[in-house]
Amino acid sequence: MKSAIAELEAKGRAAREASKRLAYLATDIKNRALNNISRDLLARKDEILAANREDYKEAEASGMNAAMLDRLMLSESRLEAIAGDVLNVAALPDPVGEVFDMRTQPNGLLIGKKRVPLGVIGAIYESRPNVTIDISSLCLKSGNAVLLRGGKEAIRSNSALAGVVQDASLNAGMPDGAVQCVENTDRALVDHMLTMRNVIDLIIPRGGAGLIRSVVERAAMPVLTGGIGVCHTYVDKSADVEKAVAIIYNAKVQRPTVCNALDTLLVHADIAGGCLPLIAAELAKAGVELHCDRPALAILKNQSGLKLVPATDEDWGKEFLSLVAAIKVVDSLDAALAHIEHYGSGHSEAILTEDYTSATRFLNEVDAACVYVNASTRFTDGAQFGLGAEVGISTQKFHARGPLGLKELTTYKWIIYGSGQVRM
Amino acid sequence: MKSAIAELEAKGRAAREASKRLAYLATDIKNRALNNISRDLLARKDEILAANREDYKEAEASGMNAAMLDRLMLSESRLEAIAGDVLNVAALPDPVGEVFDMRTQPNGLLIGKKRVPLGVIGAIYESRPNVTIDISSLCLKSGNAVLLRGGKEAIRSNSALAGVVQDASLNAGMPDGAVQCVENTDRALVDHMLTMRNVIDLIIPRGGAGLIRSVVERAAMPVLTGGIGVCHTYVDKSADVEKAVAIIYNAKVQRPTVCNALDTLLVHADIAGGCLPLIAAELAKAGVELHCDRPALAILKNQSGLKLVPATDEDWGKEFLSLVAAIKVVDSLDAALAHIEHYGSGHSEAILTEDYTSATRFLNEVDAACVYVNASTRFTDGAQFGLGAEVGISTQKFHARGPLGLKELTTYKWIIYGSGQVRM
Repeated sequence: MKSAIAELEAKGRAAREASKRLAYLATDIKNRALNNISRDLLARKDEILAANREDYKEAEASGMNAAMLDRLMLSESRLEAIAGDVLNVAALPDPVGEVFDMRTQPNGLLIGKKRVPLGVIGAIYESRPNVTIDISSLCLKSGNAVLLRGGKEAIRSNSALAGVVQDASLNAGMPDGAVQCVENTDRALVDHMLTMRNVIDLIIPRGGAGLIRSVVERAAMPVLTGGIGVCHTYVDKSADVEKAVAIIYNAKVQRPTVCNALDTLLVHADIAGGCLPLIAAELAKAGVELHCDRPALAILKNQSGLKLVPATDEDWGKEFLSLVAAIKVVDSLDAALAHIEHYGSGHSEAILTEDYTSATRFLNEVDAACVYVNASTRFTDGAQFGLGAEVGISTQKFHARGPLGLKELTTYKWIIYGSGQVRM
Repeated sequence: MKSAIAELEAKGRAAREASKRLAYLATDIKNRALNNISRDLLARKDEILAANREDYKEAEASGMNAAMLDRLMLSESRLEAIAGDVLNVAALPDPVGEVFDMRTQPNGLLIGKKRVPLGVIGAIYESRPNVTIDISSLCLKSGNAVLLRGGKEAIRSNSALAGVVQDASLNAGMPDGAVQCVENTDRALVDHMLTMRNVIDLIIPRGGAGLIRSVVERAAMPVLTGGIGVCHTYVDKSADVEKAVAIIYNAKVQRPTVCNALDTLLVHADIAGGCLPLIAAELAKAGVELHCDRPALAILKNQSGLKLVPATDEDWGKEFLSLVAAIKVVDSLDAALAHIEHYGSGHSEAILTEDYTSATRFLNEVDAACVYVNASTRFTDGAQFGLGAEVGISTQKFHARGPLGLKELTTYKWIIYGSGQVRM
C-alpha cells in the first residue's frame, strides 16, 4: 500500500508539473492533441475493445446486472461516438487566455483579469469508460492536467483509453504527464487522493449519489458536482393546457433515468380538474406510475388505464429516475413556491403559465440552478444551453451553477501593467 | 449550551427566511437601509461608544496588548470613517439582477444567466468592531442575509453596532432577520456554526492566520478567504533601477503589517551589485532589517547604516508583517519563477523589468491572484482595483481570486424563457 501511495503521489506531482506548461500552451497544440486522440481512438480500437472485453467478462462473471454491464460495454459504434465528441471539444473556443474587465486606473495602472486553468483536476468515476475520454478532453482543452481514477470494473478499458490519450497528446506536443491514470483500484487510494490538496485543485466525481456524497464529505479540496435533481413542474391556473401536456410528457418520459427529468408535478387547484385527466392520459401512454395526493387521486380515480398510487410523505422530494411521477394539487403559486423551496434540490424547476406576473415571480423567487417558464426541464444540459460539452451539472452555488462547460474548469488571475506606480 | 445552540439555529433560520426576500429586493430599499445605517451610527454614537468603553476596560484589565487594544477602540472620528464607508457601499452599483450571456437558441428558447445573492453569509471575526459594519453593509447591498459572530473581546461593541444595523434596515423596509448577531461568545457556538451548511451558504473568516486556518479546516460549507500573503518582487537584469528603488520601498514600507507588503526581494545577479546598495540604502531610511543570502550579504556587508542579518531557510516563504525583508540573488528569470512557485502563497507577485519578453513570461507563468509588472504589490486592494469596497483578498482559485467585492458575494441562476419547447 505504501508503494501504491508513493506512486499516486508521484503521478500527482507529474500532473502538477505538466499543468505549468499546459497553463499557457497554444490553442493549436491543444486542438492538435484532441484531433490526434479522436483519430487514435479509432486507429487503436482493437486494443481498446480487447481490454474492454476482458473487463466485461470479469464483470459478467462477478454477477454485474444488465444495466451496469451495458454502461461498461464499448463497441465500435460507441468508440466512434466518443471520438466524435472529442472533435466537438476541439471545435469549441479555448476559454484560456481571455482578458476581461481590463481598465486603466486614474494612476495609469492597467488592471484586468485573465482567464487561466484551475491547474490539476482529479476525476473519480464509476463504470462508464467513456468518462475517461470526456473528462480528459475537456481538461486538456481548458489547459488543466488531470488525474483519472476510474472504477475497478473498467480498469483495463480505462487504462487502454488513457494510454491513447497520453500517446496522442505527447505526439501533439503536450507536456508529458498531463494525463495520469491511477491503475491501482484499491479504495484506500481514493481516500488518499482526496487529501492531496497541494496537488489537486478540484475534484470532479461522476457516478451515483453514494459516490458523490462520499467524495463531497471527505475531499480536502473543492469539489464540483451536482448529482441529485429533484425537478418540479408547476402548472399555474393560467397555463395553456395543450402546451402543459406536451411539456410534462417530455419532462417525464423523454429520458426518465437522468437528473433533469420531472419528479413532482404541482397543479393549481383551479385548473387541476380540467387538466390533470389530460396530463394523466398522456403519461399513461408511456406507462408512467402516478403517486397522487388526495385531491389528485379524487380527480383521477375513475379514469381508466392509469397506474395510480396514493402518495406518501416519501414521494415529495424524491428523485425517481424512472417512469414514476408524484402529483400534488396546490392552492396557489405561493404554495407551489413553498413546496419547491422545501423539497427541491436546486437543480431545475419549471412553471407553466400564461400569466406574466406568475412567470416573473417564479423566475425571481425560485432558488435553483435553472428556472424555466413554459419549457421542459430536460433542456438542462451543456449542449442544449449552447456550451458545447459539459463535465456535469452543478447544484451548488459556489464557483458555477447548472451545466458546467469548459469555462467552469478555469479561474482568473489579475494582471497589472505598471510603469513605476507606488501606492500613496 | 443546548439552549444557546437552539438560539443560534433559530437565528440561522431567521436569516435564511430573510434571505428569500432580500434576494430580489429593490436596490432603492437596500440603499435606503445603508444610508440609514450611516446616519444612525452617528446619531447613536453615545450608545455605541459607551458599549465600546466597557469592552475596552475589560480588555485592558485582562492584559490585552496595546496593538490589540487599538484595534478594539472606537472613537467619534473612527465612527465617522465607518459611517462614510457605508455611504461608499451605498454608492456602488448593485450587482444583483444583472442578466448576462442571454441568447436565443435555435429552438427559440431564450437562455441566460441572472446574478443573484449567495443567500446567507456567516462572518467569523476577531477584535475589530468595524468588521461588523463592513460585512453587514456589503452583505445587505449584495442581497445576502448575514450571521455575525465577532470576538468575545468586542461583544458589547458588536451588539451595539449590529443593533444599529438591524433597526436602520428594518426602518428602510428590509426584511426582519436579515442581520443576525450571535451574542453568546462560547467557542462551541463557532464549532456549531461551521456545521450549519443547510442554513449558511458561505463563511467569511476575518482575523489572524490561526482563526482562518481553523475555519477552513472545519467548515462544512464553502469558505471565502485569503489571509496569507507571501509577496515577492523580482528585479530583472533589465530593470530600471530608479523605478525599482521607489517600488520596493513602497511595497515594503508604506504599510508593512498587511498581506500585500513585500516579503522577499529577488534580484538578478547581473544587476545585484549595482542596484542592491541603492535599494538597501533606501530601505534603511525606514529601518528595514534585511535578511540576506550569501551573495547579497557579500554585496552589502561593507555598506554602513544597514541592519543586515544572514538569511536562514525560514526566511523564504515567510510573511514578515513588519519592517523585515528577505533578499536573495538569483541567476535568471527561471530561478526567480521557481523560487516564487515554491515559496509564494498565490497572493501578489511583481517583476520589475524593461524587457518585454521577461514581463510577458512573468505574467504568464506566475500562478498567483495578482501578477504585476513595474508596480508595487501594495495595490492589491478592492478600492485600488476599482471594486469599491472589499470583503477580503482570496488566494484560493475557486469562485473568486484576489480582491473580493460585491460581485464575489453573488452567484447566478440560469433563467429560461420558453413558449412550449420540448426536447427532441
